[in-house]
Amino acid sequence: MEKKDTRSEIIRIGTELISRQGYNATGIEMVLKEAGVPKGSFYHYFKSKEEFGLAVLDLFAGYYSRRMTALLQDTALSPLTRIRKLLEGSLERFSRNQCSKGCLIGNLGQELADQNERFRARLDEIFDGWRRLFAACLSEAQTAKELDSRIEAEALASFILSGWEGAILQAKVMKSPQPLQDFIEILFKVTLR
Amino acid sequence: MEKKDTRSEIIRIGTELISRQGYNATGIEMVLKEAGVPKGSFYHYFKSKEEFGLAVLDLFAGYYSRRMTALLQDTALSPLTRIRKLLEGSLERFSRNQCSKGCLIGNLGQELADQNERFRARLDEIFDGWRRLFAACLSEAQTAKELDSRIEAEALASFILSGWEGAILQAKVMKSPQPLQDFIEILFKVTLR
Repeated sequence: MEKKDTRSEIIRIGTELISRQGYNATGIEMVLKEAGVPKGSFYHYFKSKEEFGLAVLDLFAGYYSRRMTALLQDTALSPLTRIRKLLEGSLERFSRNQCSKGCLIGNLGQELADQNERFRARLDEIFDGWRRLFAACLSEAQTAKELDSRIEAEALASFILSGWEGAILQAKVMKSPQPLQDFIEILFKVTLR
Repeated sequence: MEKKDTRSEIIRIGTELISRQGYNATGIEMVLKEAGVPKGSFYHYFKSKEEFGLAVLDLFAGYYSRRMTALLQDTALSPLTRIRKLLEGSLERFSRNQCSKGCLIGNLGQELADQNERFRARLDEIFDGWRRLFAACLSEAQTAKELDSRIEAEALASFILSGWEGAILQAKVMKSPQPLQDFIEILFKVTLR
């Protein structure tokens, strides 16, 4: 493999392992072994385990942010329909994965927010980007008279992100998508009606 | 110290350390050192690290369940006022702790639901108990005409628990109580209005 491909492969396997077992429990040796890369060459690709972890975070955040942007700015659908489609798509993918792993950003937030300031600051930026995407879509819903314009869009965006992250956590513990279904149902039937 | 006191002290320190750094990262030696208990005597109190972890979980869950029950069954207040008081009390305590640690049950759910079936099953029971307490209070709110009776109380209970756990996670990452304030505001002004 070329250098770039090897680095991508290490990040891909790192994402899988960190999603499954967390950052602290994921040893560099374990990642390299699964990637079939000689143990000594890690520092050829990353300065430290922290740099590697942040690269995993950036790759995931970039992928997810593109997915959210594409859905939440899809003007072919009404703003609230876009939010529903995003959540239902995540519910489907999560169910297919036997309700395991959860949200990598949520997991690393739980694990590292009190332990590592670089991770905390980066995770904070990622959540902030997600809240902004939701808030912009909710403002559009208000302009389109799909949503009561007296509700503060930023607070509602934060509320939706909280509910979603918490529902993923509950579903992971229950090993059932029910909490995600409950969240979507109440959100659209009651909060956003 | 008597045997019972020593065991309690080990659990107390274990709760603190596990809340701060997670279960896997909390070594038994670390707990015993802080408790001032000789290293060899751990198995005098617990059969294994897992038994110790489950004892920490049970103590916390028992304490929290008593607190929730006392508040959510306090008939001196209207049902929705009880829920608001519970959430505002948690917000205040969390803010006082510099938005660190988060919810022990949520943290262990993230960390262990995919790794340890005994923990997962126990955490599932604990969340289920919390959902039941919320659902009973919400049903009372419906009987008292404080809440629209067409909303399914169980789904709404799950929705509230999701939002609360997710708000604690966001607040821990932001190091700000804002997501908890957003959650309470939207919940009472919009969802439960």
